[in-house]
Amino acid sequence: MLNIGLLGCGRIGQVHAASLQHIDGAHAAAVADAFPAAAEALAAKTGAKVMTSDAIIADPSIQAVVIGTPTDTHFDLIEASARAGKAIFCEKPVDMSADRIRTLIEIVEVAGVPFLTGFNRRFDPGFATMQARIAAGDIGDVELVTILSRDPSPPPVSYIKSSGGLFRDMMIHDFDMARFLLGEEVVRVFATGSALIDPAIGAAGDVDTAVAVLTTASGRICQISNSRRATYGYDQRAEVHGSLGLLRANNVTENNVEFASGAGFRTAPAQHFFLERYAGAYRAEMLHFIGCLSSGKTPSPGIRDGLAAQRIADAAAQSLETGLAVDLD
Amino acid sequence: MLNIGLLGCGRIGQVHAASLQHIDGAHAAAVADAFPAAAEALAAKTGAKVMTSDAIIADPSIQAVVIGTPTDTHFDLIEASARAGKAIFCEKPVDMSADRIRTLIEIVEVAGVPFLTGFNRRFDPGFATMQARIAAGDIGDVELVTILSRDPSPPPVSYIKSSGGLFRDMMIHDFDMARFLLGEEVVRVFATGSALIDPAIGAAGDVDTAVAVLTTASGRICQISNSRRATYGYDQRAEVHGSLGLLRANNVTENNVEFASGAGFRTAPAQHFFLERYAGAYRAEMLHFIGCLSSGKTPSPGIRDGLAAQRIADAAAQSLETGLAVDLD
Amino acid sequence: MLNIGLLGCGRIGQVHAASLQHIDGAHAAAVADAFPAAAEALAAKTGAKVMTSDAIIADPSIQAVVIGTPTDTHFDLIEASARAGKAIFCEKPVDMSADRIRTLIEIVEVAGVPFLTGFNRRFDPGFATMQARIAAGDIGDVELVTILSRDPSPPPVSYIKSSGGLFRDMMIHDFDMARFLLGEEVVRVFATGSALIDPAIGAAGDVDTAVAVLTTASGRICQISNSRRATYGYDQRAEVHGSLGLLRANNVTENNVEFASGAGFRTAPAQHFFLERYAGAYRAEMLHFIGCLSSGKTPSPGIRDGLAAQRIADAAAQSLETGLAVDLD
Amino acid sequence: MLNIGLLGCGRIGQVHAASLQHIDGAHAAAVADAFPAAAEALAAKTGAKVMTSDAIIADPSIQAVVIGTPTDTHFDLIEASARAGKAIFCEKPVDMSADRIRTLIEIVEVAGVPFLTGFNRRFDPGFATMQARIAAGDIGDVELVTILSRDPSPPPVSYIKSSGGLFRDMMIHDFDMARFLLGEEVVRVFATGSALIDPAIGAAGDVDTAVAVLTTASGRICQISNSRRATYGYDQRAEVHGSLGLLRANNVTENNVEFASGAGFRTAPAQHFFLERYAGAYRAEMLHFIGCLSSGKTPSPGIRDGLAAQRIADAAAQSLETGLAVDLD
Repeated sequence: MLNIGLLGCGRIGQVHAASLQHIDGAHAAAVADAFPAAAEALAAKTGAKVMTSDAIIADPSIQAVVIGTPTDTHFDLIEASARAGKAIFCEKPVDMSADRIRTLIEIVEVAGVPFLTGFNRRFDPGFATMQARIAAGDIGDVELVTILSRDPSPPPVSYIKSSGGLFRDMMIHDFDMARFLLGEEVVRVFATGSALIDPAIGAAGDVDTAVAVLTTASGRICQISNSRRATYGYDQRAEVHGSLGLLRANNVTENNVEFASGAGFRTAPAQHFFLERYAGAYRAEMLHFIGCLSSGKTPSPGIRDGLAAQRIADAAAQSLETGLAVDLD
Repeated sequence: MLNIGLLGCGRIGQVHAASLQHIDGAHAAAVADAFPAAAEALAAKTGAKVMTSDAIIADPSIQAVVIGTPTDTHFDLIEASARAGKAIFCEKPVDMSADRIRTLIEIVEVAGVPFLTGFNRRFDPGFATMQARIAAGDIGDVELVTILSRDPSPPPVSYIKSSGGLFRDMMIHDFDMARFLLGEEVVRVFATGSALIDPAIGAAGDVDTAVAVLTTASGRICQISNSRRATYGYDQRAEVHGSLGLLRANNVTENNVEFASGAGFRTAPAQHFFLERYAGAYRAEMLHFIGCLSSGKTPSPGIRDGLAAQRIADAAAQSLETGLAVDLD
Repeated sequence: MLNIGLLGCGRIGQVHAASLQHIDGAHAAAVADAFPAAAEALAAKTGAKVMTSDAIIADPSIQAVVIGTPTDTHFDLIEASARAGKAIFCEKPVDMSADRIRTLIEIVEVAGVPFLTGFNRRFDPGFATMQARIAAGDIGDVELVTILSRDPSPPPVSYIKSSGGLFRDMMIHDFDMARFLLGEEVVRVFATGSALIDPAIGAAGDVDTAVAVLTTASGRICQISNSRRATYGYDQRAEVHGSLGLLRANNVTENNVEFASGAGFRTAPAQHFFLERYAGAYRAEMLHFIGCLSSGKTPSPGIRDGLAAQRIADAAAQSLETGLAVDLD
Repeated sequence: MLNIGLLGCGRIGQVHAASLQHIDGAHAAAVADAFPAAAEALAAKTGAKVMTSDAIIADPSIQAVVIGTPTDTHFDLIEASARAGKAIFCEKPVDMSADRIRTLIEIVEVAGVPFLTGFNRRFDPGFATMQARIAAGDIGDVELVTILSRDPSPPPVSYIKSSGGLFRDMMIHDFDMARFLLGEEVVRVFATGSALIDPAIGAAGDVDTAVAVLTTASGRICQISNSRRATYGYDQRAEVHGSLGLLRANNVTENNVEFASGAGFRTAPAQHFFLERYAGAYRAEMLHFIGCLSSGKTPSPGIRDGLAAQRIADAAAQSLETGLAVDLD
């Protein structure tokens, strides 16, 4: 039985705890949170002990930590956990600074501990199926990737100010998805954007509507578009055009009912809430992490995938500012 | 160049005239109608001569007639045309009486003239594709056929009184479709129905909502449902469940645009008007008829198919009245 | 905290135990099974005590039982539980005999205990949404209901022999769904069927392909079709045609990926396994049961719904045998 | 009755002739082609006279010309027709040089003759409906436009060499569509592309896979992607994300039949041939042109729309070469 320590008992920590309840061979042994009440509540549901993060990291009976704390605490928790020999599952982004992620890579790789970066969408049944079929050769060579991603509604401007901006906070998921589907490293980034939804977002120096064009060394191209608002739900689509065919992951709707009337045929809107939309992905992600710990396989996406997405996000932000395409070395 | 005589220049006659304009090797040579103005108008569009029906049938330069006149004139026109050696394309129903159709079969078969019964839906790209794939073995053995057919709105009660009732006027199309898709003769019919849309239809002795269950000797089953009213367009669907898979013909919508909003994803309603919905079918039907005349092949569905559908309709009407399933000998 | 006793720890008992883990205010307090190992395994996962059924029913600290044992044990367990004042959640069918269900109704109603019949499909997000929208008047008056239900593959013939036949074992779900969607009692049943999939099923006196036509006093009509085999998954669809529009519950596919190639656009097959297809339904069903216990509301569908579906199934079996429509008094 | 002269009797000239046969109040009065046999054949079908282009332009009884000749002949034919006071319907591109189009604009505007540029896709029922709904405010403010356009297979390399390149030959349709849907002029263009399908296309100095990002003064963004090859048909999609919702024009498939099997649910591929896919668009386009001549309304898109699309194509080609975004003044 693997003993897992959950660092952070907020919304995402609770999701990971629930996933563990469905997995044989692992359980939440200890939980920690800056707010004791949050830790107590999660402990009551799971049977885990409430401890401090330090105590969890120091406890030799705990084999792995799941880090779901605020981003600015990730660096120290990763460093300490790696030095303590713990396997690490860290929510994205690993850190807001690519340089600091580089430092962590060294620490983690020296320590030789398994590391999973929480790009949950790779584990979504749709996107995972799509990538598996690409890898199986179903569409031949990948040529054009199109990713459309729109949130139901924008976060508060206060959040946007500390978020690092749309490219680092929202489109970073799509940058990771692009790498996942392109099957080749991105070498060039062009991005542009506008504040069309809320002028306050523009006043805060950010955009709420944006696109990026990524290219690879062999000439594969990926287009991404983001909007901070979609009236019809959480819009999460991708398609990959290859030499032999096209794969497309469509939206997941709230139910399978269709209503026909004089206005036409109407299906339900897309699921609105990311925890509902990606419920299956979160479960599969934890299953993958625990499975790697049991089998000795290397978790993927790893910490270097966290860096790669962050670097594309940085390049996109720079392209938006300068109007020029940015080469990744 | 085949010279075709159009008997009847109403709505359906105009459709057949337009189809002929797109076909090489045949043209509307003469048109006739009880209303001279209708014949004149169609002649002006096509270059055909205005003649009487009798004159057309008597004209040795005319090889074929297309009969689109009221049903009660079909018998005489078919008899005269057959005796004159004309190939015949007659709109459905051939006649309201199965016995009179039997008489016509004898006349037509003695005369040895090609005969096409105008069950246009067999030529619809959807239904024709479905039947061709069944014939090609794509779904293995046919087991269950489901036909859903609903008109946009009921005809006037005055029409219903002289129509022969829902089974002979509306569901007869579905009885022919059932035979087309089942690939085996129907031996037993159960039907029931209600007047739910308009009490006046019930008062006129008819139903506006009805279902039928048809079975074949080998145990294949077909379910049909009809409604005289559908708010969302002209609902025309069929599906065939076989041992290896399912084939389904979906509705044809007015356009391919989808609208996403908080209420969900909405596509256009089904095409409303039968002439629009079956425009492709009418063109393919005429192409088939002319093709048979050129190649010497036998047109299908023939006059015996007209009788078979009529007999099922009679049995359904009897089942509705008696509450009992009716065996076809 | 409600203490729930699970009678039966097989596949369905495990599903109900998992549902309870997600519900606040209730937990599996005790489990029983004829096979001690099954009870032990479920106890280990849930923290419940292993007890005998008798002991559970006799335990005053347990407020409700969930009966997931073989059908022939239902009668005694229901009787004992009702007399002990337990709330009862019993899997369908309540019993194979309508007369014995009538006896149970008297016992349960005299005891005054809450009773839920496990027609899980009523709680499926699709069918539940459809019924809620009908009740809200979205499609006006219900006129025609069409239910298509096909299993991925037939059960062993040995099972079929003891199952009561297709109408009582499989279509009974659809009879309940018909009542749920029609909103009016069924007064007349016509059914027919064939053994097309496996002659051994026919030899065992049953059919594997069947249809039924149900009518209500006001003339509403429901068509049902069943097949014991569908190559493309667990086919579970229903549609309701009303005076103002149509509601349709489509199949749920394995994922949301579409593959486009020269052969066309292909989506995943329908989910195959009933526990996966109705996972959401089982959770919602238990939530409803527990919610009723907490709030004092009456669970629905109740034991009289179990009887009503059974009576339609009996009538359908009789209609198949006699070829006549059967009136329900 | 309007007398129309068709200049060019090739594939597209034949399409326009067929459209005229369905329009009251206009007919093909004369046809011209460099190959006399082509003109003779079209004359036989339509009843038009065979004349030279010069004679048609000089004939005072002819009110309008439809120019479907090779692009390099457009300039002279437009100039002569305009000076002769003819209304002009000219296939796209008006000319390969933006400067020469500017010269033609002056000539046409001085002559004051109606001019329609043959961007047929604006008249497609899907795209036209989408634009009409945007104009009606259904999705609020336009924010993001996505256009996906893929040909079934690449043209011969010989054609590509004289085509002006992908941006001027293929994506020019999408640039016009972008202007149509954005509702605002494009001020900035970024484009990139690769030769992934056929190295010979790359050797000829062109690309076969390309994307463009267009932005408007107010910050609206349009993404376009093109491929010269799609295994699944002629892929023609667009979607517009607005403040109140999303409009999407889906592909048109060869028929409405769905096939379900163990491999999933499969619909027909997209229509392959542009003349079939845009049959409705060509008819609506001619109806619009003739309608404008009858009513005195100004045809749209006009010659200035031809210039605007050409300028975006030139900017895209420049962006591809330089790697920089290009501003349109």
